[in-house]
Amino acid sequence: MKTAILGFGVVGSGAFEILEKHGYEVKRVLDIRPHDELGDKLTANYDDILNDKEIGVVAEAIGGLEPAHTFVVKALKAGKSVVSSNKHLICTYYDELHALACENGVTLRFTSSAGGGIPWLYNLRRSTRCDDIYKIMGIMNGTTNFILDAMISNGSDFDEVLAEAQRLGYAEANPSADIDGLDTARKTAISSSIAFNTIIKEENVDIFSLRYIKKADIDYITSKLGKTVRYLGFGIKNENSVSAFVEPTLLDSGALESNVNKNNNMISLFGEGVGRLSFYGQGAGKYPTGNSLAQDVIDIIEGKAEQSDVCVTLKACNDGCERAYYIRTSADVNYDFFDKVEVIGENKFITTKKITVSKMHSVAKEIYALDDSAFFAGIEE
Amino acid sequence: MKTAILGFGVVGSGAFEILEKHGYEVKRVLDIRPHDELGDKLTANYDDILNDKEIGVVAEAIGGLEPAHTFVVKALKAGKSVVSSNKHLICTYYDELHALACENGVTLRFTSSAGGGIPWLYNLRRSTRCDDIYKIMGIMNGTTNFILDAMISNGSDFDEVLAEAQRLGYAEANPSADIDGLDTARKTAISSSIAFNTIIKEENVDIFSLRYIKKADIDYITSKLGKTVRYLGFGIKNENSVSAFVEPTLLDSGALESNVNKNNNMISLFGEGVGRLSFYGQGAGKYPTGNSLAQDVIDIIEGKAEQSDVCVTLKACNDGCERAYYIRTSADVNYDFFDKVEVIGENKFITTKKITVSKMHSVAKEIYALDDSAFFAGIEE
Repeated sequence: MKTAILGFGVVGSGAFEILEKHGYEVKRVLDIRPHDELGDKLTANYDDILNDKEIGVVAEAIGGLEPAHTFVVKALKAGKSVVSSNKHLICTYYDELHALACENGVTLRFTSSAGGGIPWLYNLRRSTRCDDIYKIMGIMNGTTNFILDAMISNGSDFDEVLAEAQRLGYAEANPSADIDGLDTARKTAISSSIAFNTIIKEENVDIFSLRYIKKADIDYITSKLGKTVRYLGFGIKNENSVSAFVEPTLLDSGALESNVNKNNNMISLFGEGVGRLSFYGQGAGKYPTGNSLAQDVIDIIEGKAEQSDVCVTLKACNDGCERAYYIRTSADVNYDFFDKVEVIGENKFITTKKITVSKMHSVAKEIYALDDSAFFAGIEE
Repeated sequence: MKTAILGFGVVGSGAFEILEKHGYEVKRVLDIRPHDELGDKLTANYDDILNDKEIGVVAEAIGGLEPAHTFVVKALKAGKSVVSSNKHLICTYYDELHALACENGVTLRFTSSAGGGIPWLYNLRRSTRCDDIYKIMGIMNGTTNFILDAMISNGSDFDEVLAEAQRLGYAEANPSADIDGLDTARKTAISSSIAFNTIIKEENVDIFSLRYIKKADIDYITSKLGKTVRYLGFGIKNENSVSAFVEPTLLDSGALESNVNKNNNMISLFGEGVGRLSFYGQGAGKYPTGNSLAQDVIDIIEGKAEQSDVCVTLKACNDGCERAYYIRTSADVNYDFFDKVEVIGENKFITTKKITVSKMHSVAKEIYALDDSAFFAGIEE
C-alpha cells in the first residue's frame, strides 16, 4: 500500500521526509506550488491520486476546511483510508467523516490534529479500550504557553511578550486563534470526543481568552496565591454529560504543568483503572507533527489502525461541572459566590467559591460588559 | 482468541478484572493458591492451559525467573503469544524469548515490565518505526522517588523516610532491589534494548546506589547548587555503543522530573525527529500495571501487536558517554577531574568536570574503599 500526501507545507513535507527515509513510499504529493525536489511525484490534479489503485492512504496536511473537506470525502468514498493533521476539519466534520470511513470500510486517523508530535490522541483512544476515562486536560497550545512562561520568568507584560513571540515565529501576525483559545478549544473538542466516545463540537467549548492577562495578575497569582498559571483545555465526564472548556488555570507550583516551559505541550488523561497518564512533547513543528502524521500512515499500512466507535450517549453541557475561579476586574461587581475580594489600586482581585463552569461564563459576560479588560481563570484543585 | 493468566497476585488479578470487565474472556488462571471467586477458571496444572487450543495468549504475572521462564518457553513453543510484566525474566532472557517467538510465529510483549501503568515501552517501540532514538531517561522506580520527594519536602533523613515508606507499603522489608538500583537497572536495560534495537543486560548497567544519600546532601544540592535530585535510569546511544547507567541525578528545579512527586514515574525518549517525548503515570499497582498487561493482551487478540527486531549492532559500553558529577565524601581524595571542592565539617562536597561514566564508577570504587558512606550523583545538563 502506498501513500499520497495532500499539501507540501511544514507538516506535509516533514511527514514526506520521515516516511521516505524509513522505507514507506510516498507515491504522489498534491500541491499547486512548484517543488522541483519532488519530480514526478508532484501533481496539482487530485484525480491522479483518487484514480491510483496503489494509493491506499491519503495524508491530508492542507489545513482549513476547503478544499481539505472535499478532498477527504472523495478519498474515503474512493475506499482510501485518510490521515489528517487538520484540527479545524476534524472538529467540524468528525461525525460525517467517521460515518463515511465506516461505510467504506476504511480508516480515519488524526493523531497529529491535537498535541502535534505527542502521541496523545493515539494513546487516548487506546486507553478507552479497557478503561473508563473521566477527565482529560492539558496544555495544547505552544504559543500561549510560551507567552505565560515568558511573563512568569521575565516579569514582562502580555503585549511585549506577544510581540517577542511574533518576532521569534512562535505567534502569528494575527494571534487570535491561539490567544483567544479557538486552537485549544478545537483540540479539546476532538480529545473529548475520543475520550468520552461522543461528538463534541467547538461551539460546545466555553472559552476564557488569555489576552486580558496582565503582569498584575501574574504578580498576584504568584505572590499572593502562591500559584502559577497555564492555559488549559478540559474535558470532564459528568453523570449524564460532558463539560468542555478552555480557561487560564491557576495551578500549584509543584504541578507537572507548572514545569512545562517554552512552547511545549502536556496533555493528561485520568482513567478509573490506570489513574493519571500524562504525555509531554512538542505540540507543533515540521518533524514532530510530521512524525505523528507518519505514525498514523504506518499503522494503516501495517494493518494496525483502529478507530473509535461513536455512540453519542453523552451530550455537551457545562452545567454539570464546578470549580473555583480567580477574577481581576475594575468593575464594581459583587456576586454571592465571591469568596475573597482584595482591592489593589483600581482593581479587585477575587477568588470565588465553587460554581458551575456555565454559570461563571455567563457571569463573565456581565462583567465584561462593565470592564472589557477583566481577566478570568479557573483554579485547579 | 482467549487468554490465560499465570499468577493471580496483584498484577494478575488486576489484569483479570480489567479484561473480563471489558469483554475479553480470560479462560484459565494458573495459581497454586485457592481463589474461590475464579471457580472453574482456576487451575494449578499448566497443561490445562498449554493443551487448550482456544487459548492464544498467555499473560505471565508470576514474577521471578522460575517457574516463569519454563512456563513462558513452553507457551511460545506451543504457538501461543506471551505477555509478561516480569522485568527480571525479560531482562535476563529477552534474546532467547524473542528468538522463540519469531521461530514460532507468535508475539512476545512486555509493556508492563517497565513503567507499570505507563504505556512507555509500547510507545518507545512505536517511535522506533520512524525515528532515531538517541537517549532514554526516567524515573522508573516509585519507592526511591517517594523517598527523595519526602526527604526534600520534609527535611527528613534517608533512614526515617525509608522506615515510613515501609510502614506505608511503598517499600519492601528488604528494600535493596529498589534503593540499590537493581529494579531501575533492569527497566533501563529493557528500555535500552528496545530503544536501540539491541540487547542490553542488567550487568551492562552501571549503578550508583541511592542508600548513601543524607539530609546533608539534600541541603547542599538545594541550597548551594540550586538543584534537586531524582533517581534516574539512562540509556544513551553513542557512535558505536550504548551507555546504560542508573544514578542519583541532580536536575534543575524547573525540570519536569523535579515535579514528579510521591511514588510516580516519568520516562522520556529523545528522538532526532520528534524531539523529547515524556510519559508520566503510576509505575506500579494492581489496576495501573494490570491495565498495561491487559492492553498488550488486547493488541494480540485484535491482531495489532508488533514486536521489535533485534539486530545487536550496538554493544554496551560506558566509555562513550560523559557527564559531570556531585560527590560527598569524608575520604581524603583528590582527582584531576574535580572541579570545585567545599569542605563542611568532616565532609568534602565536590562537583567534577565531565568524565566518562565508566571512569566515574571506577573511581567510585576507590573512594568507597576509603569511605563506605560516600554518595555519588550525576549532574544532568
